[in-house]
Amino acid sequence: MEPKAKLWVEKDGAIVLSGYRVRLLQHIAETGSLAEAARRMGLSYRRAWGKIREIESNLGVRLVESEVGGAGGGSTRLTAVGERVVALYTQFETAAQADIRRHFVELFSEEV
Amino acid sequence: MEPKAKLWVEKDGAIVLSGYRVRLLQHIAETGSLAEAARRMGLSYRRAWGKIREIESNLGVRLVESEVGGAGGGSTRLTAVGERVVALYTQFETAAQADIRRHFVELFSEEV
Repeated sequence: MEPKAKLWVEKDGAIVLSGYRVRLLQHIAETGSLAEAARRMGLSYRRAWGKIREIESNLGVRLVESEVGGAGGGSTRLTAVGERVVALYTQFETAAQADIRRHFVELFSEEV
Repeated sequence: MEPKAKLWVEKDGAIVLSGYRVRLLQHIAETGSLAEAARRMGLSYRRAWGKIREIESNLGVRLVESEVGGAGGGSTRLTAVGERVVALYTQFETAAQADIRRHFVELFSEEV
């Protein structure tokens, strides 16, 4: 048997952060491209952009910034706040999942 | 902002315990009646019974026992193991949710 947990963060009843949303931000950080991040998530560019705007609007902060032009035809990267949100959420998820597993093992280690 | 978490327990890829399943067991414990427990969960008697059998089969233990006849027309109650499963899962859920909240507050208490 193993414990499973799905985590997310709500604000006024709306989902503002989740593993899925943070993964999209992480792909932007890794690729420097919203188009490539969207592709990796199986999303259209338009939908990925809408998701980012939605998270920014819910949190009230800018998470990504874009640079137009240049040899590569522009790029998108995380703002300092965006990087901090990804780091904090990742720490939250890791710490929470570890404790969930610990509690489960402690409680269910004996035969039920 | 507030953290949210959905927890469950899997065995060989199948869900064996969850808040929903444990709630069904709790209603049986409280009412002494599978019919009444099913009604409270908005399930048909047949479906509630099938769910109980499924959990028992996945865990490999008997969780409920029925007594036929008598003035009330029979009753269903939890076995000692069933009571233990409900108690352990409730402790697991409570402890895990408390730690999830604690990690969230520690990490996200400052302005992001």
